[in-house]
Amino acid sequence: MTQLEKQLIEWRRDFHQYPELGFLEMRTATIVADILEGLGYELEIGKAVMDPDYCMGKPSEEETKQHLEWARANGAVEKYLGLVSEGYTGIVATLDTGKSGPTVAYRVDMDALPIVEATGDDHVPVKEDFRSTNDNMHACGHDVHTTIGLGLATKLMENKDQLKGKMKLIFQPAEEGTRGARSMVEAGVVSDVDYFVASHIGTGVPHDHFVAANNGFLATSKMDVTFKGRSSHAGGNPEEGKNAMLAAANAVINLNAIPRHSGGATRINVGELHAGSGRNIIADHAALKIETRGETSDINDYVKSQAEAVIEGAAKMYGVTPHIELVGEGESADCSLEVAEVLKDIAEQEGLSSDLRSDASAGSEDATFFINAVQKHGGQGTYCIFGTELAAGHHNEKFDINEDSMPHAVNILFESAKALGEK
Amino acid sequence: MTQLEKQLIEWRRDFHQYPELGFLEMRTATIVADILEGLGYELEIGKAVMDPDYCMGKPSEEETKQHLEWARANGAVEKYLGLVSEGYTGIVATLDTGKSGPTVAYRVDMDALPIVEATGDDHVPVKEDFRSTNDNMHACGHDVHTTIGLGLATKLMENKDQLKGKMKLIFQPAEEGTRGARSMVEAGVVSDVDYFVASHIGTGVPHDHFVAANNGFLATSKMDVTFKGRSSHAGGNPEEGKNAMLAAANAVINLNAIPRHSGGATRINVGELHAGSGRNIIADHAALKIETRGETSDINDYVKSQAEAVIEGAAKMYGVTPHIELVGEGESADCSLEVAEVLKDIAEQEGLSSDLRSDASAGSEDATFFINAVQKHGGQGTYCIFGTELAAGHHNEKFDINEDSMPHAVNILFESAKALGEK
Amino acid sequence: MTQLEKQLIEWRRDFHQYPELGFLEMRTATIVADILEGLGYELEIGKAVMDPDYCMGKPSEEETKQHLEWARANGAVEKYLGLVSEGYTGIVATLDTGKSGPTVAYRVDMDALPIVEATGDDHVPVKEDFRSTNDNMHACGHDVHTTIGLGLATKLMENKDQLKGKMKLIFQPAEEGTRGARSMVEAGVVSDVDYFVASHIGTGVPHDHFVAANNGFLATSKMDVTFKGRSSHAGGNPEEGKNAMLAAANAVINLNAIPRHSGGATRINVGELHAGSGRNIIADHAALKIETRGETSDINDYVKSQAEAVIEGAAKMYGVTPHIELVGEGESADCSLEVAEVLKDIAEQEGLSSDLRSDASAGSEDATFFINAVQKHGGQGTYCIFGTELAAGHHNEKFDINEDSMPHAVNILFESAKALGEK
Amino acid sequence: MTQLEKQLIEWRRDFHQYPELGFLEMRTATIVADILEGLGYELEIGKAVMDPDYCMGKPSEEETKQHLEWARANGAVEKYLGLVSEGYTGIVATLDTGKSGPTVAYRVDMDALPIVEATGDDHVPVKEDFRSTNDNMHACGHDVHTTIGLGLATKLMENKDQLKGKMKLIFQPAEEGTRGARSMVEAGVVSDVDYFVASHIGTGVPHDHFVAANNGFLATSKMDVTFKGRSSHAGGNPEEGKNAMLAAANAVINLNAIPRHSGGATRINVGELHAGSGRNIIADHAALKIETRGETSDINDYVKSQAEAVIEGAAKMYGVTPHIELVGEGESADCSLEVAEVLKDIAEQEGLSSDLRSDASAGSEDATFFINAVQKHGGQGTYCIFGTELAAGHHNEKFDINEDSMPHAVNILFESAKALGEK
Repeated sequence: MTQLEKQLIEWRRDFHQYPELGFLEMRTATIVADILEGLGYELEIGKAVMDPDYCMGKPSEEETKQHLEWARANGAVEKYLGLVSEGYTGIVATLDTGKSGPTVAYRVDMDALPIVEATGDDHVPVKEDFRSTNDNMHACGHDVHTTIGLGLATKLMENKDQLKGKMKLIFQPAEEGTRGARSMVEAGVVSDVDYFVASHIGTGVPHDHFVAANNGFLATSKMDVTFKGRSSHAGGNPEEGKNAMLAAANAVINLNAIPRHSGGATRINVGELHAGSGRNIIADHAALKIETRGETSDINDYVKSQAEAVIEGAAKMYGVTPHIELVGEGESADCSLEVAEVLKDIAEQEGLSSDLRSDASAGSEDATFFINAVQKHGGQGTYCIFGTELAAGHHNEKFDINEDSMPHAVNILFESAKALGEK
Repeated sequence: MTQLEKQLIEWRRDFHQYPELGFLEMRTATIVADILEGLGYELEIGKAVMDPDYCMGKPSEEETKQHLEWARANGAVEKYLGLVSEGYTGIVATLDTGKSGPTVAYRVDMDALPIVEATGDDHVPVKEDFRSTNDNMHACGHDVHTTIGLGLATKLMENKDQLKGKMKLIFQPAEEGTRGARSMVEAGVVSDVDYFVASHIGTGVPHDHFVAANNGFLATSKMDVTFKGRSSHAGGNPEEGKNAMLAAANAVINLNAIPRHSGGATRINVGELHAGSGRNIIADHAALKIETRGETSDINDYVKSQAEAVIEGAAKMYGVTPHIELVGEGESADCSLEVAEVLKDIAEQEGLSSDLRSDASAGSEDATFFINAVQKHGGQGTYCIFGTELAAGHHNEKFDINEDSMPHAVNILFESAKALGEK
Repeated sequence: MTQLEKQLIEWRRDFHQYPELGFLEMRTATIVADILEGLGYELEIGKAVMDPDYCMGKPSEEETKQHLEWARANGAVEKYLGLVSEGYTGIVATLDTGKSGPTVAYRVDMDALPIVEATGDDHVPVKEDFRSTNDNMHACGHDVHTTIGLGLATKLMENKDQLKGKMKLIFQPAEEGTRGARSMVEAGVVSDVDYFVASHIGTGVPHDHFVAANNGFLATSKMDVTFKGRSSHAGGNPEEGKNAMLAAANAVINLNAIPRHSGGATRINVGELHAGSGRNIIADHAALKIETRGETSDINDYVKSQAEAVIEGAAKMYGVTPHIELVGEGESADCSLEVAEVLKDIAEQEGLSSDLRSDASAGSEDATFFINAVQKHGGQGTYCIFGTELAAGHHNEKFDINEDSMPHAVNILFESAKALGEK
Repeated sequence: MTQLEKQLIEWRRDFHQYPELGFLEMRTATIVADILEGLGYELEIGKAVMDPDYCMGKPSEEETKQHLEWARANGAVEKYLGLVSEGYTGIVATLDTGKSGPTVAYRVDMDALPIVEATGDDHVPVKEDFRSTNDNMHACGHDVHTTIGLGLATKLMENKDQLKGKMKLIFQPAEEGTRGARSMVEAGVVSDVDYFVASHIGTGVPHDHFVAANNGFLATSKMDVTFKGRSSHAGGNPEEGKNAMLAAANAVINLNAIPRHSGGATRINVGELHAGSGRNIIADHAALKIETRGETSDINDYVKSQAEAVIEGAAKMYGVTPHIELVGEGESADCSLEVAEVLKDIAEQEGLSSDLRSDASAGSEDATFFINAVQKHGGQGTYCIFGTELAAGHHNEKFDINEDSMPHAVNILFESAKALGEK
């Protein structure tokens, strides 16, 4: 095992033990920043690379402050903590080769999930003593992604003279819930990028296999909706209430009744509903968690706008006030096959089998905002997947990967930087 | 049997044979006008005593024209037909005694119901050969009311010198569906009235019994509602439709869910719903017939305004356009006991048993508009009921009354005119 | 101030400081038992006077155990604690005079509300240092009722030789939510009772005024409803879910749409609804808190059975499993005027003004189960109200009474025992 | 133009002038039978080839009798009329070559649509004087299909000695609404068939182009649903009604809310809803026209069974009785490519361009029942399309075809009979 391979495992297991939720990746981000600065990268951190107006579903100030204390107590690098203390935890690290050439960007994500990790001895992180130290878990592999990003950073800097153009490494917060990417796009992070590569580990792709262009992400919108009414005694003065629960119940049913779309698949779900405060009181508030999806961004926009009409109409029926907060959003995207072919060739040279593209339906991702932004100004972008063995599916408490897949991932991305720099 | 008693029967049986629906009482009204003018009354007919803006649920121009032809062919008095040809069939007949005194008004109604009369030999109108000649029926006794009005007119004029003040006889169209009274009130018909008496025959009050003040009318609003959407092929392009049926279905359910009122009884009903035009087409239209009621006018107003909100909200949910047409309305009323006592005393002198007042729930009536308008400017009004034997309930195809009750009714009203003129 | 008057205040303020929720009145009941036994009463406690099958909305075993520890630590009388440790806290104390005569029963209730008492200095319990020591509060005056019961017990025993027949004092748990009375009725507590008197303090009746027969209680049913479905990923496999939230939403709307009843007022409310566990998961459970009311028991039964049909139908629509738990119930009742007249006369001799009866709508009460049971076997029962000054309305955090009303109450009930014993 | 080509036009224009709706093709079928018998075919007609239990959406006895009179008056062949007089209008004509070989079947459909044909001079049937003589119209080309079937019959018999095995010509009623095919399948009409070919003209395929295997038919179920409740006066006794309109409204909304299916497209529509009979009457009946679709038969079955649950649950909520009548059904199908290749080769020899298969979404068809039944017992089947110029789209009042496409169609089918007989 090379020194870098050992280092990758060490990094990954460290991040795995200290998982942080979206917009709270303070320990992770400050350690990442410290390593990158040590390697010689030029860094931009926090609001410099994130537009606060487009951060969706950000935790409250209170939660953010509490987490800051946790991060400080658990190994965050104090030097950078001021820059991320309000929860703007994105980082862009740049390496300018000084030689003319394109700008090539790589995105990795850093956040974890609110899942309690498994405790059985058959779970490798337990057996090898790197289980999560809190109630969150890297159950989607973003610890691995951050590690791959640092491995790539190391190799790029070590082999700087083989490169041309400019390299940008984007460490994104809050991919879970598709909440963080857009704020980095709106801050202009990829406005100068010619080639863009996002990547993910696992997702069902077999070990030693590679997918160069993963299309099929469903566009999605996540919304938190509240209805504010007026309470009254249900026995004494029912006519004085403004029943938020009735508005919410109508919204739930009619959201599900939004017409299908002939252009492709749609999804709508109200996953949570809480209303009312006592058996004999007309409910004066109701809160819903909603999610729409569409096979394309246009189709999702259709569902979303229908949903807004349903919510407003339901509120109007009962004289209550609706409030819709967008707490996450992802687009569909169509990967650039030219970049994908470069990646596929490299993967095959690396000894992996590979697919140029996959169009199978594939959940949602906000890397699509980067890809679409880059393509819009004439650049190219793709989303690739490194196969690995999974101990259990993503978002499962027993999720785990085969760490052997990490060096392959670092090599493929490094070689792509070399190759794309020549373009 | 006196001459007048014979005449009453003759009139009643004539009207019974030629029943006309609300705002179409052209034959009836022109015959009434002819008789009243013959007696020497000063007449105002049609738009002079009806504000067109407040005629609710008026038949279409087409239907009105068709009925004009029917009336012409069935005995309408041509001389007055021009005044009522557009369906404004109200009449106010005035007798000014020349002597100082109050203005006393009596209201009778003239319209019939769209009910096909019974054909069996046990039904007196069949047996005695005055069954309806068309598909409508005087199944609520308004033929009797019109007759009583003419009887009263006759006695008043014959005994003019026993009277003081001014007498107004109001022949109202379209009481069924509570559609006609308000237009006469808005035209100012009772703005000079000091004492007002409306009356009804039957309603479950026993023969030879009299109720002087019938409260308990539920306020009501009748509405025809349509939703206009956009059709599309349900298989091919479901997303292009604007589904009027879904809006209507939501309206139906949520109208029924309007909160109860702590102040008294409410009612809401959607009695008819028709939507759509083909199995595989998104419905672009829906039509509902709605009725609200409340123990008081305020409570009915509450239900009505909630209903409007529900309709608008349901429309908004599905992007369709709602239209609400008010096609009938009645208020609650609280009869003036001073007038009622006058009537009660007379009834008892006439040999009838009597109640001063009844507060039992009693359907809806638009005479309440007259009573409330008179009371508002300081006058007094009541709604009295002449008991009679009924062959079957009101609005039943076998409805019939005991004609013996008619002379009593005429006498009571005539005596009240004398007594109230003294006030 | 007499010794008994001082004692009443002492008892009341002690109970006020240690309020206990329904079926958890362990400290209260054991102190009551100890005092009654000291006075010489024959006692029946717990399951002897409560049928477990008819205890509605009883706290869980866990909560009951926890409260037992609290009671033990806060002054419960250990000797009786074993009898009430499972939450069956009812007591029946009997005084048999040995002389022939009727059985006369008095009911008082003992439970408090989950309301945090006011802390301001203007609140008498704060100023005079007897504010609640926990997060519950006697905000409905049941501390006063228990005290009156003990005062009555004292006077009856002290004047035993003036009495005839048998006296039963019923200390009932869990009147709040109308949960406790029925279990005592089903246990046969009033099956031998000839005259029954329940009483309440306050409720808007002025100080020094008395209402002898308070009718107008709405019959009511309280239900906790759950729907159990099946979760699935809303994006990945929507067709595999059984959506409990959709069933619940339909139930909420259609419960509100239960038709009005021509026989009298109805009420229906869903006060709380909680469903689902994550934005992108089909909700597999939903929980509702429901309350029906009717002007009579029959009308409430109508609403309740309609509600059951709605719940079952809504479940069927989505293939989920409904569960309805009755957690409280009260009937309507028609007080016996013969007993009420006895009470009214006594109150007037006591110097109070009084009403024989009040039929105004008056919330719900489960003493009605006792009244109806007594009347059913030929006895008589009434529900009387002792007026007092209220610092704030019932169930308000500033609720307080004028303690001067307590001696009046004790005297009236004592004198009624004497008088009814003579019947 | 050959004699047969002239005959084709003559037949087509005759059928076009006398369009008959599904299960009423009495004139058409008796003329077809007469021609086929004249050619020497062995015929089975009516119930011999149709299982009455599987006729869906069949007109009432009354309508059927009325149409019989129309047919008799408009050229039906009396000799066969007895066999089809109850609306069982299917025909199977068999030609047994006597030589060993497979059984090859061809299906054509005969019914028209309730569309009033255009009257403008630019519409060829008007200009050339063969416009429909009644209010129906062959607006989907089934007049052409019947004609092609007769043309094929003619050529087969004329060239009998070039054929092997057995030839079956299936003339199917009621394809519109996917109502007729299943009854012929259930009667065993294709239980001995080795090769099956259904065909259609037009559907957007260009003139002189041919599609040999048209997949992509959506499975579908058409249902007529009624709810039967109990009426009552909405003001007087609302609690006595069983509101069928409320059940229907709930059904409409929740049918639309049936969850999407991850396996493919679904559709659901309620196209018509009629409920209630008067504004102030609780509606005692409601009728709905429903249609489900699914990308596969399994997916449609999923939607259908969810729909049944919704309907039953909605009925249960309001205590009304639901009735579901299946009035049409179609399956998805996967054409046999081996047969399709035979057809494609022949079409290209005939000078047409062609596609082997099309998987585009393609409405619904009940020929799929034949294909699936044949494949189930090991045979092969396909659905092919003869391109033509359309004056306007199918089901449009100006629909018309280019008659030049008919001889091609006859030739292709005839040649396929020769080729398939060799297999």
